[in-house]
Amino acid sequence: MITVKSTDELYTAYQQKMQQVADVRNAMAVLGWDQETYLPEKGAAFRGQQLTTLSTIAHELFTAPELGEILQELRHRGDLSPRQQKNVALSLEDYEKNKKYPSSFVADLSQTTNTCYHAWIKARKANSYAEFEPLLAKMILLKQQETHILGYEGHPYNALLNEYEKGASTAMLDKVFDAAKTALTPLLQKVMQQPAVDSSFLHRHYARQPQWDLGMALLKDMGYDMAAGRQDISEHPFTTSFSPQDVRVTTRIDENDFGNMTWSCIHEGGHALYEQGLNPEEYGLPCGEAASLGIHESQSRLWENNVGRSLAYWQHYYPQLQRSFPDHLQQVPLEQFYKAINQVKPSLIRTEADELTYHFHVMIRYEIEKGLLEGAYTTKDLHQVWNAHYRQYLQVTVPDDTRGILQDIHWSHGSFGYFPTYSLGSFYAAQFFAAAQQQLNGLTEQIAAGQFGPLLAWLRENIHRHGRYYTSNELCEKVTGQPLDFRYFLEYAEGKFLD
Amino acid sequence: MITVKSTDELYTAYQQKMQQVADVRNAMAVLGWDQETYLPEKGAAFRGQQLTTLSTIAHELFTAPELGEILQELRHRGDLSPRQQKNVALSLEDYEKNKKYPSSFVADLSQTTNTCYHAWIKARKANSYAEFEPLLAKMILLKQQETHILGYEGHPYNALLNEYEKGASTAMLDKVFDAAKTALTPLLQKVMQQPAVDSSFLHRHYARQPQWDLGMALLKDMGYDMAAGRQDISEHPFTTSFSPQDVRVTTRIDENDFGNMTWSCIHEGGHALYEQGLNPEEYGLPCGEAASLGIHESQSRLWENNVGRSLAYWQHYYPQLQRSFPDHLQQVPLEQFYKAINQVKPSLIRTEADELTYHFHVMIRYEIEKGLLEGAYTTKDLHQVWNAHYRQYLQVTVPDDTRGILQDIHWSHGSFGYFPTYSLGSFYAAQFFAAAQQQLNGLTEQIAAGQFGPLLAWLRENIHRHGRYYTSNELCEKVTGQPLDFRYFLEYAEGKFLD
Repeated sequence: MITVKSTDELYTAYQQKMQQVADVRNAMAVLGWDQETYLPEKGAAFRGQQLTTLSTIAHELFTAPELGEILQELRHRGDLSPRQQKNVALSLEDYEKNKKYPSSFVADLSQTTNTCYHAWIKARKANSYAEFEPLLAKMILLKQQETHILGYEGHPYNALLNEYEKGASTAMLDKVFDAAKTALTPLLQKVMQQPAVDSSFLHRHYARQPQWDLGMALLKDMGYDMAAGRQDISEHPFTTSFSPQDVRVTTRIDENDFGNMTWSCIHEGGHALYEQGLNPEEYGLPCGEAASLGIHESQSRLWENNVGRSLAYWQHYYPQLQRSFPDHLQQVPLEQFYKAINQVKPSLIRTEADELTYHFHVMIRYEIEKGLLEGAYTTKDLHQVWNAHYRQYLQVTVPDDTRGILQDIHWSHGSFGYFPTYSLGSFYAAQFFAAAQQQLNGLTEQIAAGQFGPLLAWLRENIHRHGRYYTSNELCEKVTGQPLDFRYFLEYAEGKFLD
Repeated sequence: MITVKSTDELYTAYQQKMQQVADVRNAMAVLGWDQETYLPEKGAAFRGQQLTTLSTIAHELFTAPELGEILQELRHRGDLSPRQQKNVALSLEDYEKNKKYPSSFVADLSQTTNTCYHAWIKARKANSYAEFEPLLAKMILLKQQETHILGYEGHPYNALLNEYEKGASTAMLDKVFDAAKTALTPLLQKVMQQPAVDSSFLHRHYARQPQWDLGMALLKDMGYDMAAGRQDISEHPFTTSFSPQDVRVTTRIDENDFGNMTWSCIHEGGHALYEQGLNPEEYGLPCGEAASLGIHESQSRLWENNVGRSLAYWQHYYPQLQRSFPDHLQQVPLEQFYKAINQVKPSLIRTEADELTYHFHVMIRYEIEKGLLEGAYTTKDLHQVWNAHYRQYLQVTVPDDTRGILQDIHWSHGSFGYFPTYSLGSFYAAQFFAAAQQQLNGLTEQIAAGQFGPLLAWLRENIHRHGRYYTSNELCEKVTGQPLDFRYFLEYAEGKFLD
């Protein structure tokens, strides 16, 4: 029956089916966004059930035999464009991977994710890992099962890692993180020997409304399209997308910490620019999706750090910032502000860490995740392991669970293999930014003039519009002429922090 | 296979399937809520597509043969409780009705609703019915098809009417509306001969924040559970429910019209109390749903009018209102305020109409809808027909389309047969409120003391908790001892407006 259809008809049928899956997933994203922003307290239980149902439906739609037949048939058609071929090949790959998951596993995972997430919230409030531990144990068990469902070469961790970063492996990560550890440990020591800068002015009282106004202005200036997105408040900042024309960010405001909101806005804005830059005509198709989490993170971090923590950026914004908060900043020269916002200091909380120590936070989680999957640790050991790692890598003592093992949402969401992409993102960002500086004339001067259009156009052209057409490795080679190389980050970090 | 299952197993399977349908429909409700409150402009197109997909899925789930088999089997089981029996009977009825709809029709209707709705928004902005007319024509065509799909006895309008008010018919409505027209026309004339009251103070400048605070306070005082709901701003106020534990209301604030927000809060609050009072253990099942739109509206109007426009209500709130807006109200005695908020005056806009002329607005729409379905009018005539009806029934001249035929969202949503339930709601409300006054000792005094707990408990006990167990007629007889009788409303109106 199918073989008599023209390639156009088949491709259209494929596209329609993929759009249906995307519609359900994006509906889930709306429900998820609402859950983090506006959901009333008692609504949580039914919301969890609603998400589970949608997740089951999305899974069923994406594993329907008819879709598989269409994909198999399309794969052998010679008259597809290269971009169409890539969509079909990637969808087939996704399809076959999804087929591996039994519906019962999907429902179980969704339900466990929901209960685990709520247990994490409760445990955090109670400052008690013990309350979270049994649910985390169940989650790990499911994740171990998932490695078997998916299959893997080498380390079981690779199965999960590839969900976020296709082509990555523990072998590759071990190499990058070894290089990072080897180079960053002495760099960190050197930096710590520099005279401390007084950054107390960042922790005075910064009123909500002017903070919010600043964040909105920064987002707009970056090129974030407010007619195709919006910002709201949530406990943890995030970006979510329901289509390239509805990409939302959230932030939080800490009235005693100027930096908290500012760089979360820039960071989430970087993610959002990527999503807004995807091709709306490929909605639901792989090439209309982000390349990988590492590449996604490269976009947020490029804006947050390479741009948003640069001297040039604040040459532009600092005068108006001083006008907004004269009591705190009028007496603080730009150079002191710049040093204060780039202060390096080992600390307890990953999301508040500076650009250097940040990667040690990630390495700790990476090592723990590998250990849990190998069975080298159990969730009962984790408390000890976490605290020991923090002592060893960052020379800090973890005072309680909220500031320790309960600080991240990821495990409660079942996101194992996710953390390494944060570091990859920083490393890709440094390499991309170096390429942009080489290819764009006077990028630093443009940033100092508050002109972000050329940089955004460069990112749209070189990265955003491709979607998943290239893997992260391929994209990196295409944009920068070589595979991921930690030395770009090191060069950037030495230039900035040893200055 | 099925027959070997126990009744418990079967009933559980039935319940699970119904909950899945409810999950998808409630997800649609979340997307719809977001569309009216927070959706960025460019997000509308993909949102429409997402809603269409979910609507198709809900339809497919609710017409799945397996559900039908379970229902048929359960219908013959003798060991169900009366409530379970009612759930099964109603679900079977719904199921068989839904089976009548071809998937293609459902998708077409959803898509047309979306384009029609956006055309209505555009046409309203342009103040041009001509822009909306072709899409409305397409909608009418679909609705005519729908009457054939559903089948009907008597008038084709009955098919659509029964979607909102089971058991209602044009015969019943013609009778009620004839009685209303006959009695309200002379009453209106008498009322209009009374000396006019100065109500200009209601249209001074009332700042947003104190208006919002007042609305929130009124909602909370009524017994609306803010942990199981929330209020947001939208262009048109509405209530939506994602479960009895997440029932949301919206309002709008007009800084030059005190009444606009106040009674929208009380009105939507009345709807919301009903939804919050449904049985969460019957989530997804008929007896966990509202009885009908007429009964739903009876709850909003009982609170809005019988309570919220009563002298007793403002005996309680007026002193604090005067404190909130001393410039406008300090010199206005309670009696003048009470008369001003109950002023009767024929006008153009249904949603702003007083309690008496309101029903003429509804009758006009009812007559037009009947005429469209009969083919007595086409959408091209409608402009003329609308304006002529307003001259005849309300002696007002319609100056433009925005204040005329484009004022209501309903037709753009395909909601034909909906308007009559508004009047039914008022009439039921009067009859219910009379019963409550008889059964509760000192209801008026309780209201004057700001004590709404006894009234809410009475509504919960007599109306809310039943869900769809009784039809609106049955419920009315059970609660008040007799079927719907227009004389209760007339008595209430005469008592209030001829006072």
